[in-house]
Amino acid sequence: MPKKKKAAKPQGKLRISMLGGLYEIGKNLAVIEYGDDIIVVDCGLGFPDDDMLGIDMVIPDITYLIQNEEKIRGIVLTHGHEDHIGALPYVLQQISPPVYGTPLTLGILEVKLEEHTYETKPSLNVVHAGDTIQLGCFEIEFINVNHSIADAVCLAIKTPLGTVIHSGDFKIDLTPIESKMIDLTRLGEYGDEGVLLLMCESTNVERPGYTPSERTVGASLDQIFAKNTDKRISIATFSSNVHRVQQIIYAAEKYGRKVIINGRSMVNIVNVALELGYMRTAENTIIDINDIKKYNPEQLVIVCTGSQGEPMSSLYRMAFSDHSKIELSDNDVVVISANAIPGNEKLVNNIINELFRKGVNVIYDAVVSDVHVSGHACQEELKTMHALTRPKYFMPIHGEYKHLATHKKLAMDMGESPDRIFISEIGKVLEIDADGARWGGTVPSGRILIDGYGVGDVGSIVLRDRRHLSKDGIIVVTAAVSPSEGLLMSGPEIVSRGFIYVREGEEMMDELREITAKVIEDCFDRYEDDFTFIKGKIKDEVSKYIYQKTKRKPMVLPVLLEI
Amino acid sequence: MPKKKKAAKPQGKLRISMLGGLYEIGKNLAVIEYGDDIIVVDCGLGFPDDDMLGIDMVIPDITYLIQNEEKIRGIVLTHGHEDHIGALPYVLQQISPPVYGTPLTLGILEVKLEEHTYETKPSLNVVHAGDTIQLGCFEIEFINVNHSIADAVCLAIKTPLGTVIHSGDFKIDLTPIESKMIDLTRLGEYGDEGVLLLMCESTNVERPGYTPSERTVGASLDQIFAKNTDKRISIATFSSNVHRVQQIIYAAEKYGRKVIINGRSMVNIVNVALELGYMRTAENTIIDINDIKKYNPEQLVIVCTGSQGEPMSSLYRMAFSDHSKIELSDNDVVVISANAIPGNEKLVNNIINELFRKGVNVIYDAVVSDVHVSGHACQEELKTMHALTRPKYFMPIHGEYKHLATHKKLAMDMGESPDRIFISEIGKVLEIDADGARWGGTVPSGRILIDGYGVGDVGSIVLRDRRHLSKDGIIVVTAAVSPSEGLLMSGPEIVSRGFIYVREGEEMMDELREITAKVIEDCFDRYEDDFTFIKGKIKDEVSKYIYQKTKRKPMVLPVLLEI
Repeated sequence: MPKKKKAAKPQGKLRISMLGGLYEIGKNLAVIEYGDDIIVVDCGLGFPDDDMLGIDMVIPDITYLIQNEEKIRGIVLTHGHEDHIGALPYVLQQISPPVYGTPLTLGILEVKLEEHTYETKPSLNVVHAGDTIQLGCFEIEFINVNHSIADAVCLAIKTPLGTVIHSGDFKIDLTPIESKMIDLTRLGEYGDEGVLLLMCESTNVERPGYTPSERTVGASLDQIFAKNTDKRISIATFSSNVHRVQQIIYAAEKYGRKVIINGRSMVNIVNVALELGYMRTAENTIIDINDIKKYNPEQLVIVCTGSQGEPMSSLYRMAFSDHSKIELSDNDVVVISANAIPGNEKLVNNIINELFRKGVNVIYDAVVSDVHVSGHACQEELKTMHALTRPKYFMPIHGEYKHLATHKKLAMDMGESPDRIFISEIGKVLEIDADGARWGGTVPSGRILIDGYGVGDVGSIVLRDRRHLSKDGIIVVTAAVSPSEGLLMSGPEIVSRGFIYVREGEEMMDELREITAKVIEDCFDRYEDDFTFIKGKIKDEVSKYIYQKTKRKPMVLPVLLEI
Repeated sequence: MPKKKKAAKPQGKLRISMLGGLYEIGKNLAVIEYGDDIIVVDCGLGFPDDDMLGIDMVIPDITYLIQNEEKIRGIVLTHGHEDHIGALPYVLQQISPPVYGTPLTLGILEVKLEEHTYETKPSLNVVHAGDTIQLGCFEIEFINVNHSIADAVCLAIKTPLGTVIHSGDFKIDLTPIESKMIDLTRLGEYGDEGVLLLMCESTNVERPGYTPSERTVGASLDQIFAKNTDKRISIATFSSNVHRVQQIIYAAEKYGRKVIINGRSMVNIVNVALELGYMRTAENTIIDINDIKKYNPEQLVIVCTGSQGEPMSSLYRMAFSDHSKIELSDNDVVVISANAIPGNEKLVNNIINELFRKGVNVIYDAVVSDVHVSGHACQEELKTMHALTRPKYFMPIHGEYKHLATHKKLAMDMGESPDRIFISEIGKVLEIDADGARWGGTVPSGRILIDGYGVGDVGSIVLRDRRHLSKDGIIVVTAAVSPSEGLLMSGPEIVSRGFIYVREGEEMMDELREITAKVIEDCFDRYEDDFTFIKGKIKDEVSKYIYQKTKRKPMVLPVLLEI
């Protein structure tokens, strides 16, 4: 047998950076670079922190992608959740590389893109689990995984230096609904061939054991249907959870009920899923909400949005008697088939209380388990991923710092060496070449806040002012002055908002007028006519007086008009 | 045997109203009234809802108590938690009936009262579990219960119509720390004699089974101490959880560590508890924080505040490197021995992430169970209360509507008749007389918001304005005008805060100046000189323009100065 000639070592560098999804849950975006080729994995949005007042959503700063647009061979999507595709409608207005995703992922994306306009029509390219595409020097295989949305994939990315496995979001569901089990075999084959780097999600890394199968929810739903044959049943869940909705439809069909789909995003996604064949229903199972009166309550199931307590969602309007077509009573069962995402607990709780007040039989996670399961891998499933792929290097992704650190510990328990595990940061570059792996500087990164039509026009100063205003309100002090004559011509007028109920504060307002007038007169007496100085002085004196009287610090805004 | 002569039916009415603690968690306050006698049970504060921006705390509206001050025979306290005593510092400034409570409850109250001034010195009267006092026609026995604070009691209130049992907050702890088990026997004796009305807390009514004993936490702590003999241990918990702190001290003594108490409320309560003998420690176990350098890290335990993630708390400052005496590193273990109260999850999470980033070994409920137990009765314990007291009437208290409704269902499962179960509302009166029980109208009630020194000066309009300001900021439009001459004398000036970064909005501001000037000139041209009308017109035009451009709705505040 002739001696195998060893291939020459590749000279290039593989550079991996995340523009989101580290130290946070959301806005996932990975950049994978080799030579003159870049691919982007996912392009998600994040929800605003509690202190980002008035902000609608947050997207990654893609300056680095704009600077290197000519190198980007494609944006590859793992699945259709907001935190993986939600920034695309904005990002595609700035760069326009081809986008690759499975049919459902692109179907959901298309609905979102319709709400925006594009100079260059986005190029959306359908792939299926099992397909392989070539993007520049990268050969990418899409591998089927289980998750809380149908048609999710992970990625095996062959690079000149070796294979990168990007897990996307996944769980191991041995009994999935209308779809295949995660392709553990293919992952194992890549492991056997040798995996250079595993990038693996960390959402549920704190939880021991396994996430239960989606099918367990079906069993719970079946029991609920069996027990409540005399009542109307409404079920709120995540609109993107196609398999959950499918199970509800199956239960409805088994128990002879019609299904009403309610809530804009639920209607959108169910339509896409039906159209693309990801959901099956007998003819006439789904009825129009306008036909609701043609059926008795016990013949109906309502599948609705609002599982996170969102104001204006279908369930919210039903709970607060603000729904034009559906009135709830003690003849109703409402199932909240979801967990509250951290930060939404109070909103969900408000709805539950309102439903109780209507006499509704409310079934939620505090009282019944198994009405929801997670879509993410728990510890034993994550270990399976590590065990099958046996990566040379590991980067935990998709998690707050505690998740990433805990995932590192899990990888070490699996025998991985701590010096080959890289907990990265947004914008930080992991550089891998033939000699090894190391940190390789940073790329521009950050977060862009979206408020109404504004993308990025709200920054830290505006947010600081909103926080200030939210706590103690504002006092506007205006006066018309003539510095040349040294005269106060009109005012001072004091107007407050969000500070104190004005009728109770009359005396204080009189006092503030006097304080302001005195400051202005004193300044003019000293021939001080610098408006910035005078306004600063007014602000100081007014703030001091108010704090002494009320222990509050409203924003004080002096405006001087020169006559 | 001579026939027992039946006592004459009492002619009076027992009136029960809650001024807080229904449809909410917090600000517990019950009013019990018969003839010319009133007693008040507890007087707690509530924490502000998410939409009560800038509010420090909420207390019950006590108009009804002020109107009937001469009838109030006393305020009776069940235990020293904020939601049971926290409104007293304010309430005692308005009414001054005698206050009755156990030594620790009053000890904690005294510390709070010291921060305020009173015309009439509050009359605080110590009672002990087992004591009976007479207040007007009411004979009140204090009965020992278990809870997450020492020295908690429930009340048996003998009235002319029968006995009312008020549960306070309780759990059944068969192996309590340094205190006695709840006096089930005494409750059973009252049940045998006949209980007219049970008022029972509902906090944990959604949870099946039993709350574990406080002692189980001790066992977990012991394991943590045993495993981490080479590291400093810091434990954050509720300062009022005297038994938890006691268990930490025991563990420290067992493992030869010194204890540092850190955080203002922790120091206050530990001092009161030690002084009154509710906590025991060997001499020199507790050391001053200034002596921290005299010991090696592994010789120390730090007991600190901050288990709810409160900014400025001891643990928060330790986590964010803002503590003058304590620097954390990978040589530290931090135990969060508490659950996050709903709404505080994100704050706690922020601290956990920071601790991880410092390399601290963080032990919290997501990864280790048994580092905290609840202080409230779960379903089986609540059933025990019902089974022992067998009340004629039942009123679930201390809970959101879902808790009250679930507690009603639990009582029905215990054989109580639904027409004898009264889910009340704040201010609603339950009237009981010899003929039965029924709703008996309402008394004045509501909530008073506290913001800085202000008690009740922030109402719904101020809050609405704060919410508005927080979302999109404010635009102040000022101009000096002379209506008599029909002239715009100065301005318009446009100043914005919390709306948009001004440098990026210059063009928009120019546009707004023009719009405003045009509105004013148009009005004067039409001899329209009503300032209210002109300001309204400015507001409309400016708002419309901004919404078209930005899809935002900042507050628009026009100010016109007349020259």
